[in-house]
Amino acid sequence: MTKTLQLGIAGLGTVGAEVARQIIANHNHFTKQAGMPVMVTAVSARNADTDRGFSMQGIQFCDNPLELASMDNVDVVVELIGGSEGVALDLVQAAIANGKHVITANKALLAHHGYKLAVQAEKAGVMLAAEASVAGGIPVLKTLRESLSGNQITRITGILNGTCNYILSTMQHQARDFDDVLAEAQALGYAEADPGFDIDGVDAGHKLALLGAIGFGTAPSIDAVDMTGVRAITMTDMENASNLGCTIRLLAEAEQNDDGEVLMRVRPVILPLDNQLAKIDGPLNAVTFTGTPIGAVTAIGPGAGAGATASAVLADIIDLALGRISPFFGVPADQLAAAPHRTAPQKPERFFIRLKVYDRPGVLADITTILKDHAISVESLLQSGRSDDGENGDVPVILTTHEAAPQAIAAASAELAQLPAVLAEPVILTIGQD
Amino acid sequence: MTKTLQLGIAGLGTVGAEVARQIIANHNHFTKQAGMPVMVTAVSARNADTDRGFSMQGIQFCDNPLELASMDNVDVVVELIGGSEGVALDLVQAAIANGKHVITANKALLAHHGYKLAVQAEKAGVMLAAEASVAGGIPVLKTLRESLSGNQITRITGILNGTCNYILSTMQHQARDFDDVLAEAQALGYAEADPGFDIDGVDAGHKLALLGAIGFGTAPSIDAVDMTGVRAITMTDMENASNLGCTIRLLAEAEQNDDGEVLMRVRPVILPLDNQLAKIDGPLNAVTFTGTPIGAVTAIGPGAGAGATASAVLADIIDLALGRISPFFGVPADQLAAAPHRTAPQKPERFFIRLKVYDRPGVLADITTILKDHAISVESLLQSGRSDDGENGDVPVILTTHEAAPQAIAAASAELAQLPAVLAEPVILTIGQD
Repeated sequence: MTKTLQLGIAGLGTVGAEVARQIIANHNHFTKQAGMPVMVTAVSARNADTDRGFSMQGIQFCDNPLELASMDNVDVVVELIGGSEGVALDLVQAAIANGKHVITANKALLAHHGYKLAVQAEKAGVMLAAEASVAGGIPVLKTLRESLSGNQITRITGILNGTCNYILSTMQHQARDFDDVLAEAQALGYAEADPGFDIDGVDAGHKLALLGAIGFGTAPSIDAVDMTGVRAITMTDMENASNLGCTIRLLAEAEQNDDGEVLMRVRPVILPLDNQLAKIDGPLNAVTFTGTPIGAVTAIGPGAGAGATASAVLADIIDLALGRISPFFGVPADQLAAAPHRTAPQKPERFFIRLKVYDRPGVLADITTILKDHAISVESLLQSGRSDDGENGDVPVILTTHEAAPQAIAAASAELAQLPAVLAEPVILTIGQD
Repeated sequence: MTKTLQLGIAGLGTVGAEVARQIIANHNHFTKQAGMPVMVTAVSARNADTDRGFSMQGIQFCDNPLELASMDNVDVVVELIGGSEGVALDLVQAAIANGKHVITANKALLAHHGYKLAVQAEKAGVMLAAEASVAGGIPVLKTLRESLSGNQITRITGILNGTCNYILSTMQHQARDFDDVLAEAQALGYAEADPGFDIDGVDAGHKLALLGAIGFGTAPSIDAVDMTGVRAITMTDMENASNLGCTIRLLAEAEQNDDGEVLMRVRPVILPLDNQLAKIDGPLNAVTFTGTPIGAVTAIGPGAGAGATASAVLADIIDLALGRISPFFGVPADQLAAAPHRTAPQKPERFFIRLKVYDRPGVLADITTILKDHAISVESLLQSGRSDDGENGDVPVILTTHEAAPQAIAAASAELAQLPAVLAEPVILTIGQD
């Protein structure tokens, strides 16, 4: 490496522009922290002429981001284009192949290709770092990889998608419907015009796959993450959670049992209000790591946004300059175990079930008979109100169960959905334990 | 360094014994994480014969911990004796002088001698690391030093003493008197028989001095920390805080203004219940870092205890084995700035004042006249109850103020204490803003 660290930044959206601005505006700070001058020598973006709040003087503009992978005056490619395939993948692979370090914020890319890229980077002797890819400004990857390296990690639980958390916590505190809050989130820029990636749990799933791999020392597998989003959650659910002294959050959870089996799930969970993660409101992210001997530690902060994400990218840049280079997954990728993955939890859980049913006699008997047949013990049952439309109208039926086998709940749910009086797919949420 | 990392552990209390047990019991885990075998080759403790849950086979016992500093089969001295002077200081200095790395959990030692020791370690080319010295298992030093290295840190606010937090949160939730809860904390092992170090704010002050130095890049100065403990806090204060929608926590706060001036304070603060730190209960610690461009990030976890503290020591050990060696203060000690320290905040704050007064006519007029003379605007005033002893009995008077200059409050407090009807030193708490 030269005695200056030369950056080529691919992608000058809000994050890329903030990274460049910080480095240029605080040159002395970075020289001191990194032990050498850090320079933005080249950038690539869709539009060369946009004013992004920093001077392009002395910075080479590339129309094609792939050029950054082979330029002599680029030591590290900072990939902020996004997407799991296409130009981002091509750029990262080309950069590594040319002996350049890579820093990225691209969770989708790493969840799908992280193993292959880590192997490639380690063979080439270059850094592959992506602190910004999970939980934005919160240093979760370094904490897991370095600060908790002496622990046996058993569980990782997080709120990893700020869009979903904004929607759910706003429903909770302002008693507003899902669609209403989603529209607001879109207007505020917390949600994309096409929100599926966020509200279907895919974004949180990508992040969880990376946390699970680092935490358990297993090869990352996005296919092993069971993902359920928040589209089905209504104010009826939130109100009933509130009646239980709880709220609803989209949790990403990874756990490893004593046999080494890994279970990774993203789903809305009913959480007691005194749970640390139930207190996380708005677009914040939070992650709790549980392990031995530490117990549990939680980190909370901005999971997105230009400044927070740039902070994580800047930390990777300084680590690189100081030679604090670690394998992306904590241990060399070729030492990652091929953990067996579970798709369902082993332990019984408590469940919340919401059914939309015709307001007719006998419906409750049909429902409770199915639950009894699957040995599911009902803790509470509430049929609220009467339909204005008489027997052709619908009403919600809310049940909570004592601890039940998840397999039994799944089987019962399928049978409930077949009842003529049940009008929609049952909504089933786990009730968290602590 | 040899291809095995050889540890000499000085002090086998709960933490030292847990470090040794973890390394011995999980040999393969540490070999994988550290990239080389990690061995406990020598230990020193008061009693050689105590059963500490690990086999002493192959481990050399030293009666004198100073022996560890010069043994050929010790690469790193793990100092877990404690104390700012005496054998801990002698051992660390001797170890560094002999080219050995040092890992410690000793906040008092580093708050008093950290600058000198860091200079010495950097000259000798050895690691000086102490993640366990602040906030136990929460990786606050690495977060500040590495993960937030691209930020301009403006403020560090933390709950850094689990004993005080246990006492205050138990008073809050169980409405029990200070002395009662302190006795319970001592019985549970959360507080020492001589609790002064904790409840007078000294322990939190040591930790804050280290966080301030790393966060602001300034030489550590324990003398610059203004410390007030929790001895004066009564259930009257807690109840009145609750009436304001707040609670009381011992906060350690360090901030740096645009002129580079650093203010460091440890004191009980009245915090709104929705403040992240107001939600921290029991013996937990928490720290919020505020900076640009990240915004704010908070970490919560066990600030003490064998497992949590061992976790931090183990992380330092693995960092050392992997060559992830950083200057203790983030930048080389000789580059630390000599920041001017402030002793009082520049900005006005809101205050809570509790006075113990004779229950006599005219007292309130005397009090409010003094406040008026110092241009302090009263927001609320409560004289609660009547004394059973008539005019010779005492009653509490509780005031809250609008924003006032801290200097004016200090001057008014001195005058209030001189009033014949005022029976004890006024208790004055800042009311937090967010």
